[in-house]
Amino acid sequence: MRIRGRDKFLRQYHTYIEAGRIIQEATKYKGRWHELFGNDNPIYIEIGTGRGQFISQHAVQNPGINYIGIELEYLLLGRVGHKAEMAGAGKNLVVTPADASRLNDIFAPGEVSRIYLNFSDPWPKNRHASRRLTHEGFLKLYREVLKPDGDLHFKTDNRPLFEFSLNSLAEDDWKLAKITLDLHNSEWAEGNIMTEYEQKFSEQGVPINRLEARPLPKRTLP
Amino acid sequence: MRIRGRDKFLRQYHTYIEAGRIIQEATKYKGRWHELFGNDNPIYIEIGTGRGQFISQHAVQNPGINYIGIELEYLLLGRVGHKAEMAGAGKNLVVTPADASRLNDIFAPGEVSRIYLNFSDPWPKNRHASRRLTHEGFLKLYREVLKPDGDLHFKTDNRPLFEFSLNSLAEDDWKLAKITLDLHNSEWAEGNIMTEYEQKFSEQGVPINRLEARPLPKRTLP
Ligand SMILES: C[S@@+](CC[C@H](N)C(=O)[O-])C[C@H]1O[C@@H](n2cnc3c(N)ncnc32)[C@H](O)[C@@H]1O
Ligand SMILES: C[S@@+](CC[C@H](N)C(=O)[O-])C[C@H]1O[C@@H](n2cnc3c(N)ncnc32)[C@H](O)[C@@H]1O
Repeated sequence: MRIRGRDKFLRQYHTYIEAGRIIQEATKYKGRWHELFGNDNPIYIEIGTGRGQFISQHAVQNPGINYIGIELEYLLLGRVGHKAEMAGAGKNLVVTPADASRLNDIFAPGEVSRIYLNFSDPWPKNRHASRRLTHEGFLKLYREVLKPDGDLHFKTDNRPLFEFSLNSLAEDDWKLAKITLDLHNSEWAEGNIMTEYEQKFSEQGVPINRLEARPLPKRTLP
Repeated sequence: MRIRGRDKFLRQYHTYIEAGRIIQEATKYKGRWHELFGNDNPIYIEIGTGRGQFISQHAVQNPGINYIGIELEYLLLGRVGHKAEMAGAGKNLVVTPADASRLNDIFAPGEVSRIYLNFSDPWPKNRHASRRLTHEGFLKLYREVLKPDGDLHFKTDNRPLFEFSLNSLAEDDWKLAKITLDLHNSEWAEGNIMTEYEQKFSEQGVPINRLEARPLPKRTLP
């Protein structure tokens, strides 16, 4: 992703590190994020936070939940910090530059209650399938860090990625729920908080796909 | 469904009863369909057979499987009988006038290896949801008659019915597989046998949705 306003983002990045909004070494909190937040509230994470509108608004609306945004492009985190300030998010939201593939270095088993994936990169080529954030390799990591009753919430404009994800989750024994191929015209539209990508795509008339999934013990078929 | 050519269909209906292609009292074969077929081959059924193209062609291609078509509109069965003759279907295909809601009067537990639902009536109104052939009431019947390793194959042009079915099956602990929102352009296009409705809708450019599902023991979430 080409990032405009690089210098401004960089300044913001350093500002929000100092303010404690951006956590640079997430791995050192593995198993003790509750110490950072100063409470035992549930932890919800968003992987691929982008510019942060979704997680900022969630954090403002739900002070009893701790949010951690994970984003590969560290420069975007300056932007997220700024959005979070503007939205009035409190100490229940932090963000960190990290790759989802290192999730189990950042969280202890069962430390996370919910994972949000919003408009994850589709990686349309078959040879890149393993980079999709709903590929079985990632599902394995999610299983590790999620609580037994934790879940995954996934939204995307990309139909092929959504089909891939349905199959991948079903194959991996996740229990699916609230599946819709047109979120904004579904029974689950109310209370939905849009991401930046979601806003862009809905303005273009692209329907949004969404599902929830819970990891169940893997089982062998009869 | 308005049926044109009523008299011809009625004549055919009686012809195919005599020929043994149409079984009028299916309930009397409950638990002993293998006696009718004269072998222990797996039994695949189609619910809502319509005019019979799908099941006829399957029966011709798979002589080692016994097919039973179930259709509410008995008059259509004359047409199915005729299609089956034309396709060259052998004794491994019979059809019967019956309502899916009586499935457990027709089949003993575990007697069926596969259920096909093709372009089932969508019943778009919420108050008619229980008539949809993927409603939990029907899923319960399917569980009863299916073998432990049996499965359900479902195709439809109707996106709301498909969404409903995904949720209904997931909720009822069926393991989903081979989900596609555009069968004819998917990796599962090859070998697909079209139904009459499927042909009509694809000519209009409507994408076909498809899934497979296996009933797993119901389980309570943690
Ligand atoms: C298409 S953008 C969507 C951004 C935001 N979720 C939205 O909906 O507006 C995908 C984001 O995921 C980030 N990303 C991609 N792969 C990632 C990974 N493996 N770990 C963390 N973030 C990742 C990208 O840097 C990008 O910011
Ligand atoms: C829309 S048509 C599709 C016919 C065919 N499967 C096709 O794809 O061309 C649905 C068929 O299901 C039959 N049907 C509807 N409800 C049924 C039920 N409860 N039991 C058996 N057949 C049913 C209807 O009579 C009708 O022939």
